[in-house]
Amino acid sequence: MAVDVSELVEQAREGRPRAVARLISLVEGASPHLREVMAALAPLCGNAYVVGLTGSPGVGKSTSTSALVTAYRREGKRVGILAVDPSSPFSGGALLGDRVRMGEHASDPGVYIRSMATRGHLGGLAWAAPQAIRVLDAAGCDIVLVETVGVGQSEVEIAAQADTSVVLLAPGMGDGIQAAKAGILEIGDVYVVNKADRDGADATVRELNHMLGLGEARSPGDWRPPIVKTVAARSEGVEEVVAALEKHRAWMDERGVLAERRARRAAREIETIAVTALRERMGELRGGKRLDALAEKVVGGTLDPYAAADELVAGVTEQ
Amino acid sequence: MAVDVSELVEQAREGRPRAVARLISLVEGASPHLREVMAALAPLCGNAYVVGLTGSPGVGKSTSTSALVTAYRREGKRVGILAVDPSSPFSGGALLGDRVRMGEHASDPGVYIRSMATRGHLGGLAWAAPQAIRVLDAAGCDIVLVETVGVGQSEVEIAAQADTSVVLLAPGMGDGIQAAKAGILEIGDVYVVNKADRDGADATVRELNHMLGLGEARSPGDWRPPIVKTVAARSEGVEEVVAALEKHRAWMDERGVLAERRARRAAREIETIAVTALRERMGELRGGKRLDALAEKVVGGTLDPYAAADELVAGVTEQ
Repeated sequence: MAVDVSELVEQAREGRPRAVARLISLVEGASPHLREVMAALAPLCGNAYVVGLTGSPGVGKSTSTSALVTAYRREGKRVGILAVDPSSPFSGGALLGDRVRMGEHASDPGVYIRSMATRGHLGGLAWAAPQAIRVLDAAGCDIVLVETVGVGQSEVEIAAQADTSVVLLAPGMGDGIQAAKAGILEIGDVYVVNKADRDGADATVRELNHMLGLGEARSPGDWRPPIVKTVAARSEGVEEVVAALEKHRAWMDERGVLAERRARRAAREIETIAVTALRERMGELRGGKRLDALAEKVVGGTLDPYAAADELVAGVTEQ
Repeated sequence: MAVDVSELVEQAREGRPRAVARLISLVEGASPHLREVMAALAPLCGNAYVVGLTGSPGVGKSTSTSALVTAYRREGKRVGILAVDPSSPFSGGALLGDRVRMGEHASDPGVYIRSMATRGHLGGLAWAAPQAIRVLDAAGCDIVLVETVGVGQSEVEIAAQADTSVVLLAPGMGDGIQAAKAGILEIGDVYVVNKADRDGADATVRELNHMLGLGEARSPGDWRPPIVKTVAARSEGVEEVVAALEKHRAWMDERGVLAERRARRAAREIETIAVTALRERMGELRGGKRLDALAEKVVGGTLDPYAAADELVAGVTEQ
């Protein structure tokens, strides 16, 4: 099927959700139009403020995301939501679950909702999420919320895609220790203790405060991640979260940190794409036989793996 | 300090533990002698049978390893043990804990014990473990036991290094479900239910049997992973584990599977080394400024990340 990329981009800019969805599908897979789409989007990107939200299952991520969207829509902002589930085999389009939980936003033309699965894709998140964010950015979203389940490495990857990272916790889930284990304490710019009407909320805040204080000493101008208490289901504290996000954005802007973060993000993205391309070239050398032949020599003891790698690198670079 | 690699290798072949330890230290880090050592080891490798052992904390991995070592030593075999702890910041030499738990083997000249930590090293395991295995192999070990804690991705990586993978479980730890989650059911060639004198051992075996049966249908010649019950602390069932390992090895040998696995392992290893080398070259382009300049263009919208990656690849390959 012929794809008119420039027309799709035009329609996405006009706010047509189908065009946005189609563009994300084109950049998610290994579509032959991927490069054309990326080239068309490049000059339109850079306006969206990307907020990452992560937390263990049960802390109320979906409810919090929905409440945040309501708050931003009240300000007239266009919002894109990228819901990344590393454990889900489903990808593309909005899942039924999204439609249900995002019920109040599903028919709002100022809100785009997209689900993305990464299971089974090595480095899938680092690969696909930035491209989808670019589409939402180019389509005119003021805010892109990237929501993911905190299950190990993935939330760190997500944080690497965001301008500001929000870590969600809830009382009485042993989250403090979990968070420390997962390295979550190193990635949060803003911490939210949701379900703050429950027993133990203050204890969670105290524990979190304590653990955040355990890090290296901060300089006077450094960012001290705030801890905000919310009851997202009743929209309590959500305005405070928005305020904390704005504060962090302003702090980054003032110090050039936002530009730095975005440059670092772009560098990582370029490097990932380049390494993948080089890896593909390696695999293609002599129809994939080069690596096999080298591996056989290593198994046979006539070549060591470093010398074999040298030959492989030479094969790629001297084409 | 001058290092005489060929003398070290000679001494390691003679069974001197200090030389073995020194060689592992040389290949673990980014020692300038790494390549020299690897080249010297290459023709001496390929004799050791590499057995991976993994399981959650508390299933009795150390006890099982120790019991296996005793069984192999009784057959007069030389045994190397590589204890990999992805959560430990300590590396190099045998830890106090190893000496204690491996007490009966610590003074046995036919046994080498080495601890390896991978925390903080991205891809550290895939990187360092194969080299350490090569040292133990070249030093004349008949068996190399690679023991690791099952904590997510790491045990899959370890399995990729082994000729035969043993997955350890214990009754009443909810291991079945845990195992399925961690993808452990896909990597075991032999399953061991340790602490089989405890309540629930038969239930664990049944559950495991059921879950293993859920996989795709097997062809008549396919390997059906056996489940062996042990009480490692009393050496019960350990001979059966050794027999199961030998059976798997024979099965692999007959069908050329062992050669295939080793070739695949070598290919992955070569590729990892090559990709790392290319990544380093990218970082070094124009003193590291090339990638920064490209990232700035992407952030500024004058270049898309794919076109930027093309330039980066060109910079590496056209040097």
